[in-house]
Amino acid sequence: MKFLAMHITNQKLSFDIFTASSESFRIERDTFGELRVPSDKYYGAQTVRSTMNFKIGGATERMPIQVIKAFGILKKAAAEVNKDYGLDPKIADAIIKAADEVAAGKLDDHFPLVVWQTGSGTQTNMNVNEVISNRAIEILGGKLGSKDPVHPNDHVNKSQSSNDTFPTAMHIAAAAEVHQVLLPGLQTLHDALAAKAEQFRDIIKIGRTHTQDAVPLSLGQEFGGYVQQVKYSIERVKASMPHVYELAAGGTAVGTGLNTRIGFAEKVADKVAALTGLPFITAANKFEALAAHDALVELSGSLNTVAVSMMKIANDIRFLGSGPRSGLGELILPENEPGSSIMPGKVNPTQCEAMTMVAAQVMGNHVAVTVGGSNGHFELNVFKPMIIKNVLNSARLLGDASVSFTNNCVVGIEVNTERINKLMNESLMLVTALNPHIGYDKAATIAKTAHKEGLTLKATAVKLGYLTEEQFEQWVRPQDMLGPK
Amino acid sequence: MKFLAMHITNQKLSFDIFTASSESFRIERDTFGELRVPSDKYYGAQTVRSTMNFKIGGATERMPIQVIKAFGILKKAAAEVNKDYGLDPKIADAIIKAADEVAAGKLDDHFPLVVWQTGSGTQTNMNVNEVISNRAIEILGGKLGSKDPVHPNDHVNKSQSSNDTFPTAMHIAAAAEVHQVLLPGLQTLHDALAAKAEQFRDIIKIGRTHTQDAVPLSLGQEFGGYVQQVKYSIERVKASMPHVYELAAGGTAVGTGLNTRIGFAEKVADKVAALTGLPFITAANKFEALAAHDALVELSGSLNTVAVSMMKIANDIRFLGSGPRSGLGELILPENEPGSSIMPGKVNPTQCEAMTMVAAQVMGNHVAVTVGGSNGHFELNVFKPMIIKNVLNSARLLGDASVSFTNNCVVGIEVNTERINKLMNESLMLVTALNPHIGYDKAATIAKTAHKEGLTLKATAVKLGYLTEEQFEQWVRPQDMLGPK
Amino acid sequence: MKFLAMHITNQKLSFDIFTASSESFRIERDTFGELRVPSDKYYGAQTVRSTMNFKIGGATERMPIQVIKAFGILKKAAAEVNKDYGLDPKIADAIIKAADEVAAGKLDDHFPLVVWQTGSGTQTNMNVNEVISNRAIEILGGKLGSKDPVHPNDHVNKSQSSNDTFPTAMHIAAAAEVHQVLLPGLQTLHDALAAKAEQFRDIIKIGRTHTQDAVPLSLGQEFGGYVQQVKYSIERVKASMPHVYELAAGGTAVGTGLNTRIGFAEKVADKVAALTGLPFITAANKFEALAAHDALVELSGSLNTVAVSMMKIANDIRFLGSGPRSGLGELILPENEPGSSIMPGKVNPTQCEAMTMVAAQVMGNHVAVTVGGSNGHFELNVFKPMIIKNVLNSARLLGDASVSFTNNCVVGIEVNTERINKLMNESLMLVTALNPHIGYDKAATIAKTAHKEGLTLKATAVKLGYLTEEQFEQWVRPQDMLGPK
Amino acid sequence: MKFLAMHITNQKLSFDIFTASSESFRIERDTFGELRVPSDKYYGAQTVRSTMNFKIGGATERMPIQVIKAFGILKKAAAEVNKDYGLDPKIADAIIKAADEVAAGKLDDHFPLVVWQTGSGTQTNMNVNEVISNRAIEILGGKLGSKDPVHPNDHVNKSQSSNDTFPTAMHIAAAAEVHQVLLPGLQTLHDALAAKAEQFRDIIKIGRTHTQDAVPLSLGQEFGGYVQQVKYSIERVKASMPHVYELAAGGTAVGTGLNTRIGFAEKVADKVAALTGLPFITAANKFEALAAHDALVELSGSLNTVAVSMMKIANDIRFLGSGPRSGLGELILPENEPGSSIMPGKVNPTQCEAMTMVAAQVMGNHVAVTVGGSNGHFELNVFKPMIIKNVLNSARLLGDASVSFTNNCVVGIEVNTERINKLMNESLMLVTALNPHIGYDKAATIAKTAHKEGLTLKATAVKLGYLTEEQFEQWVRPQDMLGPK
Repeated sequence: MKFLAMHITNQKLSFDIFTASSESFRIERDTFGELRVPSDKYYGAQTVRSTMNFKIGGATERMPIQVIKAFGILKKAAAEVNKDYGLDPKIADAIIKAADEVAAGKLDDHFPLVVWQTGSGTQTNMNVNEVISNRAIEILGGKLGSKDPVHPNDHVNKSQSSNDTFPTAMHIAAAAEVHQVLLPGLQTLHDALAAKAEQFRDIIKIGRTHTQDAVPLSLGQEFGGYVQQVKYSIERVKASMPHVYELAAGGTAVGTGLNTRIGFAEKVADKVAALTGLPFITAANKFEALAAHDALVELSGSLNTVAVSMMKIANDIRFLGSGPRSGLGELILPENEPGSSIMPGKVNPTQCEAMTMVAAQVMGNHVAVTVGGSNGHFELNVFKPMIIKNVLNSARLLGDASVSFTNNCVVGIEVNTERINKLMNESLMLVTALNPHIGYDKAATIAKTAHKEGLTLKATAVKLGYLTEEQFEQWVRPQDMLGPK
Repeated sequence: MKFLAMHITNQKLSFDIFTASSESFRIERDTFGELRVPSDKYYGAQTVRSTMNFKIGGATERMPIQVIKAFGILKKAAAEVNKDYGLDPKIADAIIKAADEVAAGKLDDHFPLVVWQTGSGTQTNMNVNEVISNRAIEILGGKLGSKDPVHPNDHVNKSQSSNDTFPTAMHIAAAAEVHQVLLPGLQTLHDALAAKAEQFRDIIKIGRTHTQDAVPLSLGQEFGGYVQQVKYSIERVKASMPHVYELAAGGTAVGTGLNTRIGFAEKVADKVAALTGLPFITAANKFEALAAHDALVELSGSLNTVAVSMMKIANDIRFLGSGPRSGLGELILPENEPGSSIMPGKVNPTQCEAMTMVAAQVMGNHVAVTVGGSNGHFELNVFKPMIIKNVLNSARLLGDASVSFTNNCVVGIEVNTERINKLMNESLMLVTALNPHIGYDKAATIAKTAHKEGLTLKATAVKLGYLTEEQFEQWVRPQDMLGPK
Repeated sequence: MKFLAMHITNQKLSFDIFTASSESFRIERDTFGELRVPSDKYYGAQTVRSTMNFKIGGATERMPIQVIKAFGILKKAAAEVNKDYGLDPKIADAIIKAADEVAAGKLDDHFPLVVWQTGSGTQTNMNVNEVISNRAIEILGGKLGSKDPVHPNDHVNKSQSSNDTFPTAMHIAAAAEVHQVLLPGLQTLHDALAAKAEQFRDIIKIGRTHTQDAVPLSLGQEFGGYVQQVKYSIERVKASMPHVYELAAGGTAVGTGLNTRIGFAEKVADKVAALTGLPFITAANKFEALAAHDALVELSGSLNTVAVSMMKIANDIRFLGSGPRSGLGELILPENEPGSSIMPGKVNPTQCEAMTMVAAQVMGNHVAVTVGGSNGHFELNVFKPMIIKNVLNSARLLGDASVSFTNNCVVGIEVNTERINKLMNESLMLVTALNPHIGYDKAATIAKTAHKEGLTLKATAVKLGYLTEEQFEQWVRPQDMLGPK
Repeated sequence: MKFLAMHITNQKLSFDIFTASSESFRIERDTFGELRVPSDKYYGAQTVRSTMNFKIGGATERMPIQVIKAFGILKKAAAEVNKDYGLDPKIADAIIKAADEVAAGKLDDHFPLVVWQTGSGTQTNMNVNEVISNRAIEILGGKLGSKDPVHPNDHVNKSQSSNDTFPTAMHIAAAAEVHQVLLPGLQTLHDALAAKAEQFRDIIKIGRTHTQDAVPLSLGQEFGGYVQQVKYSIERVKASMPHVYELAAGGTAVGTGLNTRIGFAEKVADKVAALTGLPFITAANKFEALAAHDALVELSGSLNTVAVSMMKIANDIRFLGSGPRSGLGELILPENEPGSSIMPGKVNPTQCEAMTMVAAQVMGNHVAVTVGGSNGHFELNVFKPMIIKNVLNSARLLGDASVSFTNNCVVGIEVNTERINKLMNESLMLVTALNPHIGYDKAATIAKTAHKEGLTLKATAVKLGYLTEEQFEQWVRPQDMLGPK
């Protein structure tokens, strides 16, 4: 009871913090009227209004900071182009400076809005416009909230609309996260697995299909499958990027580019490309770029495939490392922490668990992106903040988890050679090597008899009179079973 | 190349069969004009028109026959009530007789339409109306296609609309499938698992958490967890049924009940309940019953939870039965068929595989149902055929797979007692029993030392001087570790 | 380029903050060795170790604070029961006091771990044990990190394991969020919609099926459908709670209850029930309660169904309120903020957009929960932190969004009566009222002719000679089309 | 009651048909014993055994016939290569002839197995081996079931395993379906939409964002967005194919290629490429190709993105075509069939409905594929039949629905020019054109005032004194608002 009361109080507080982080206020106004804005914040009336209208989810649900930084880049690029087209250089330069600070993460505290706002991200675009205009006003010695000499709409948002800036920021943020976090993470994992595959090249072990004993392969071959999966993961993500590099900027409200100048779209894309070092171009079709987010659904589909690969690899490694005495026990995974609060000495495959949880989350995120992507109407998809939140989350989690999994698990994997040899030599499935010599049916009889009577294959084969001991030793050699002849 | 050509030809044929299954035709007409209808079919112009307009997916994508049978029940019930309200008894009785034949599956060949038609299922409702009216006409000695003396709309569809009949048939079909296939299947599985749990009550084995060795439990306790999951599966499905028992019939086109008589809705629900033996009632709110399919999304959510349980159980059983020599090997699963076309003598947990594939399918079906359920607009959800197809598929697959899994796997599971005892006695996690006596930290040291040095727990404990051999034997007794004290 | 560098630096910093929030350190040790712990933090070595091993996702990915608070309640309950069973009252009372502070949210800064850790949540359980033991030590005048006189494992975790405490905390947290946020939110929405349905009872309007004109209903009936959906949403969530009220506490490591006393499980559940005012009981089967999370998959399934309902309602309201001049325009939605950064004066259905984004997220979360729930192995499901994160997120978002949607949209909805009347009177579908009088085929001819020739129904009907003007006026009366006769 | 009984009987019958389609039998045997096989069927004991062990789902759940045909191609290719490597030409040629018949669909009745069998598809591989060997025996004048002179395993399956043949058949079938059905379907839709975009180039209309009135665009631009989506859909699918073209054949049981000859894998891929005209190659890594199905998860991800695009396009078209009198009414969709069984004259956007249902199904199928793809273990993923069933279903449905949607909807779309002009001219959002002239804030005041007072923009602007009538007419020209200046 008391707990309930406290909890509710606590929750209310978490919202008040949005508006009450300061004790002094200034008055700002938007087209809906006046509002009190904390004196120490650069944002303005529309931002405050959004915090009042969208008390959904609390601080952990804020617009991802990567989107804010991407907006910083975009607003800088737009100001540079607007300057070329005649915007007062003094104003343009102040906007550029302020936008740089946003891109650098210096003003992160001024972006309190949550994802669960208008589906076009208009309020975050205005949050950015307000912060940049007020910071630019400050740089130019003006008064915060005066919109003079830098107006959030007429100057910072010049030749722009939320409808083209927000999707542009989405693509910049997604591409940056892919290049900064995801791809390096996957490459790290790839290289570590490849080194292990090479290291394990000559260790012959029992294969398992249907989770049951099968014919042998080398541990290097087994890890080689994982290497291939990660290699293709990287290819898949890269193959999804071309459409993400297309920027909506220049489409303004519905894709026509109303209130922009010819060439604006191309120039902004060029500037963004220069600022980020990534090959952004202007979108081939702005109507598609505003009304749909197929490019991000496509990217999310690739992340989903990466998640599927990660689930397989992490599952295999934890099962192969299961034990120490009652599992498969072929691999020895690094011990990183105490494993159990009750079972002393227990070591668990915790990195595999983090990775597989991440994989499940990415699969879920992908469905959210799919549902959001499919529900656009007419000239605008209004699931934008939700879509980018999930794409960024998936990219970040997969990238970070790949590094963590590599450093804290893969590189430290060791082999229980004794165990591997024992299992391999006992396997009944070595009988498969006899198929070309005595046929499937007789080979099956050997295996089944050996299993039933607890004998070795060789003893059974000879006893059944299907072949001689010498033939068996010549034909059934694990080291000869690792490839075609 | 040749293959491609053949394939395409073949595909075309698969559609032509809809209209070309007969060589002679009669002419029927709907409000759009005349059409040729195969002479040996009871359906009419609207059905033929649908086969022409919706060449999507071919014969395997036909409207589930359970929906057709449910329509038979509904049309019979409606005719009986219409008769009470004044419909010519001769016509009503002929309709009732024809509807009975539909419900009994005697006219299955007369329902060629696919799921991928209008989202209200109107064309299937008209298919049913046409078949019943023509069959009733035939019963009464009239001429097929004449709509006289039994009109498909004015008589068979009297006081009805596709918008209320189709969701009514959806609920009847879903409830029937749940009661005829799913619940009996789950009960069968439950009982078999419960019998095994009882049979395995006294077999003490190593537990596994994080796939790693843990403290012991009995095999009966382990199976008891599965029994509980299936018990709750049954509860979950049953708990989802009350809203499914609500029937939309009587809502007609938008939920108002226009063109029906007061009491019609209730009487139809009563009749359906009587005909099926299931507690159907008229929907509390007809607007909700037409515009949303939350009741089936809810049921699908329960089926999804059942799938989750099945995945866990089938996964466990295949891993516990893995081997025969290189796996966990605690269970011996029945050998039902040759396991491999190349590895002679291989036996695979194929029933587990069928069950887990079914589980994955049900999870996918659930997302389709969710997306469809969420996209209703205004007075009608138009994802009806897709929704019911997936719900019926999930219920059927789970029910059938439960029976197959039970009969071909669970009942035949045997125990490898020798293996179980060996693993249990070697386990380091028995050290946990020492916590209350020497504390967590010392117990951890024993386990880690024993693991590192390859010793038994007892030898290590004594060597480390933490306790005597007698104390060890008194405190570490697996049979005393199966419950609280 | 510069941006990339900054971004990466920034990201690294976000991790360092975990361990570097203080300038002075104390040395603590776990079974893996020594670690530096910030002097001003109550957590200890295992927590620090986890921050080093799991650098995944950053601060926004921390274990939900609701789980931490639930742990506070559980640890208090356990200490009280342990005291009854003989734990030194001085130690027990200090634990209880410290646990109270955790439950009250006073120590939130001491829980830095992310969700993406071990899948059993062991590290969060240990984080809690460490914080409570150190705080209790402090209360008793001891030295932080000394584990004396209060040991994190032997005292705070007494009779517990992560494997039963974490799922217990999951259930407590989920139930609390449902009762504190979700159900009140849904009830708020329900009541507001019900008031609107009553207010709109006598407004007759055109119905729409297939998004096309259909027969009339009252606006109150239309809203009545929404009311029913929310009413059933509440029922669905409540119906999912019984299994959530089952607590795993007392199962310890694998469900057997090893190292607990008979009655411990029941007493802890009783204490938790008393502390929260919710009807928690001890789980009927502890093996199921550790190895599976079907109860939370079930709850998530209900949340998914709620999301489906919300998507429908919010979609309808935004379409009915579309315009102001080129949409359906029947409803007038409240203007809450400037709608566009480029189109002056634009007002958008932003609350509908937030709600539908939330709905999409919940559908995605549900898939993550489903995948996690299905992948448990043997005695423990190790997707626990991911599962509870998603369930809590769904419950919170749906609850908060319901309140926001109610306060900022539903209560302020007004009706454009003029528009509603105009559309209704022009509708061709009023012809449906003629079916019982002149039959479906003739009625169809009237509607099609009127549509083709742009005439009114009445003029067409009379012109075609199917009925008189008087008959038309008598039979076609919208106010008589709202129900059965 | 009676219904229930009938239903159950009926269900039983549906299984018996598998084995009882003939009245006479022959005796065949596998390694498990003897079985009765229908005399008129080419399949043998293992197939019959599978029908007995997997009574799951009934006839609609049979292995997709595309997989069987793909097996025909593969078995032909393998026989040709085996002949090169020394297989008796008489036997090889008979196998080739029989395989040709399978590929041509002449033996479809001989493949009764359902998808829900062993997860490796072994039983379908054996079904194919049995049918081909028996048909080849027949060709050579032997006795059905004698395995002489053509043995199903030793000859038809020579150098093969289910573990490499089934995934090979999966890839062949998927690629064929994509090329024969999906891509042609998408191209058809693309071309029809492109023609409409061209046809509608000069029709200026109101734009809609947030479903609310926005600035104008041309109807050609709006359709141009759809064209781009379909163009990119085609690109996406094609971009997913390279990994699908990789064939597992030659990997045999675990990927090593045991029991094959060097070069076998490459030669088989070459043959398959030649037989199909598609650029198949041998898989770069056979271990990955057996143990994972990432390539099909990737393809499914592309199909999911296509579904998202289709949902958007079909939704837009149905809303733009809503009416005829109470909707948006800008488009006039073709009337294809009677729309309602109760509302005479109603015309519904049924093709949009079929398309959106297909889209929802594809999203669900994708989750099933994702779950199956993620759950592979060790050397073999055992969700193979389920995965390919869903991929084929998605490709087929999207392809067929695209053609149906094109032919029965898109090509017949007409424009309600009068309505479009009226809405466009009344729009308040034309005010946006004033931003560059009078600033955002004043423009907002004009729009809000006009809305409140029901005036035109021009009248309001002049009345407020912000500009002259001449300026308004010069600045606010819809035809000048369709692009940058």
